[in-house]
Amino acid sequence: MAASSEPRAVALGGGHGLHATLTALRRVTSQVTAVVTVADDGGSSGRLRRELGLLPPGDLRQAFAAFAAEDGGTLWAEVFQHRFGGDGALAGHAVGNLLLAGLFEVLGDPVAALDEASRLMGISGRVLPMSPEPLEIQGEVSGLDAENPEALRRIRGQVAVATTPGQVHRISLHPTGQADRPPRGCPEAIEAVLRADVVFLGPGSWFTSVLPHLLVPDLHDALLRTDATKVVILNLIPQPGETAGFSPEKHLDVLFEHAPELRVDAVIADRDSVPSPARLREAAGKLGARALLGAVADPVVTGRHDPDALASCMRDALGLTGGGAEGMEGQRWR
Amino acid sequence: MAASSEPRAVALGGGHGLHATLTALRRVTSQVTAVVTVADDGGSSGRLRRELGLLPPGDLRQAFAAFAAEDGGTLWAEVFQHRFGGDGALAGHAVGNLLLAGLFEVLGDPVAALDEASRLMGISGRVLPMSPEPLEIQGEVSGLDAENPEALRRIRGQVAVATTPGQVHRISLHPTGQADRPPRGCPEAIEAVLRADVVFLGPGSWFTSVLPHLLVPDLHDALLRTDATKVVILNLIPQPGETAGFSPEKHLDVLFEHAPELRVDAVIADRDSVPSPARLREAAGKLGARALLGAVADPVVTGRHDPDALASCMRDALGLTGGGAEGMEGQRWR
Repeated sequence: MAASSEPRAVALGGGHGLHATLTALRRVTSQVTAVVTVADDGGSSGRLRRELGLLPPGDLRQAFAAFAAEDGGTLWAEVFQHRFGGDGALAGHAVGNLLLAGLFEVLGDPVAALDEASRLMGISGRVLPMSPEPLEIQGEVSGLDAENPEALRRIRGQVAVATTPGQVHRISLHPTGQADRPPRGCPEAIEAVLRADVVFLGPGSWFTSVLPHLLVPDLHDALLRTDATKVVILNLIPQPGETAGFSPEKHLDVLFEHAPELRVDAVIADRDSVPSPARLREAAGKLGARALLGAVADPVVTGRHDPDALASCMRDALGLTGGGAEGMEGQRWR
Repeated sequence: MAASSEPRAVALGGGHGLHATLTALRRVTSQVTAVVTVADDGGSSGRLRRELGLLPPGDLRQAFAAFAAEDGGTLWAEVFQHRFGGDGALAGHAVGNLLLAGLFEVLGDPVAALDEASRLMGISGRVLPMSPEPLEIQGEVSGLDAENPEALRRIRGQVAVATTPGQVHRISLHPTGQADRPPRGCPEAIEAVLRADVVFLGPGSWFTSVLPHLLVPDLHDALLRTDATKVVILNLIPQPGETAGFSPEKHLDVLFEHAPELRVDAVIADRDSVPSPARLREAAGKLGARALLGAVADPVVTGRHDPDALASCMRDALGLTGGGAEGMEGQRWR
């Protein structure tokens, strides 16, 4: 990684997890590109993609809101995240989703639309989709058949996978309505990964916001080829539904299963959320990574990362491949 | 009027007519405040006011789009005006309406929301509602009763008045659901009129976008009290429905009937749209105004003002009360 005070960082993810990464990361560097999942089929995003045939904007909106809040655009952030109430046709739609949908329609090209959104909002970060086409997640899930709890069944769609009462084993990803071909990567996202000094993956809904990036072949290949430091940030608590009961190391195991060739430099986890540091280190080792256990949880809000603490750990992780690894043996890391 | 190169101008109106005024006026001065009708009950605006109980945003959106286009924000203008297609829940909604509705909900106060919209879009103009509360137009219309074509019937709502097959005689205005009290004026709009150097009224849908301003008592009184030059801009062609068959002078007659105390300095009309200059001058005289007949129509698009030609005529009108009236007897005016 270049010894610059402003490293080029890429954050892969979606939803609230990506929002947390970006909020912290913008405190580390102004050179941030978010590469965002576009497989959401629920809520406001799902309604928009079905009604208008556009990329689901919700995860992209989260990224803009995080950037705007960090760049002093708190009103933009609030308006973007605001959802209409009531029980009418607009109920539940986030204003930012509607604005992004309008930009998609006006400009035709989603990357151009997202870059213009950055410009209109006056933010320095870049928001890119992981694919220029709307994607669909399928999950192989056990525990749905009472007679044969080991049987794997395939369920379709992000909402179905995220909320399944069964256990998710694997996911796959394809363009909407074209189950026979893999998704195309967004060329600008590929380039951002290749040119990055550091790439963060996670936290977030593991099967539906984090792992999908590894199933876009172009993006997966770019992650193998890039010289960037690669850092996985683990969730603080298992997510009901898709990762109910998952230990921290189980998160890494499924990541490894979905991208066995991927090597990672560091895994950041919250020290109080890891029951067995030894088992986590072992799982991290399979990815080639060191496990960094810091105090990154918000002390008040359960399940939320503290942005300043996470930013501090990110800075430490950025020193890793330079051989410094300072602070790792100190108080910050366990 | 102050002999400044940047006069403070206020434009009263709504819809496409106000868009035309603002587009021209921004070429004359950067100190422009739009005071916009909030009585629309049709289309996207009508759906939003009914669903969310907000000010109908459509006419406000037109003003922002005009300002944005003049201030170099052509993308903002295009996105604001873009309407979702298809046949779903969003079909027909203009993106700008949805963004303004979101700002109304987030900020609570419509004037604060509109000022923030100006700031977010980076435009110099100010957009204000004529009233802080959604209003309803009622019209007294003849010709709806085949047996008694002279009989006046009262019809309710902007769409009903604008599209009536009968002849509109008078309109009245009141807050939604409170037919027994007159509408409150927007204090910031009142102040803008009182501090203005020049106030423009029209063009636009005469009964539903232009005359309503005269029926807000506070705003009407401010128009009587202000020292500003007052200029009425006539439509180029009669509007099907509310002013079908209306001559230019008939437009001034109904304006006089709705605000008999109002005195006007000038009436701008297109020379090729006025069948009888003598009759127009007579009708203008009843308002205390000189009739200025210039070539202000777009040579290509029927019914649209040419912004540069209208701006040129506005500049001439701005010299009126200074006693100059230059150019009036020259080639520009007939």
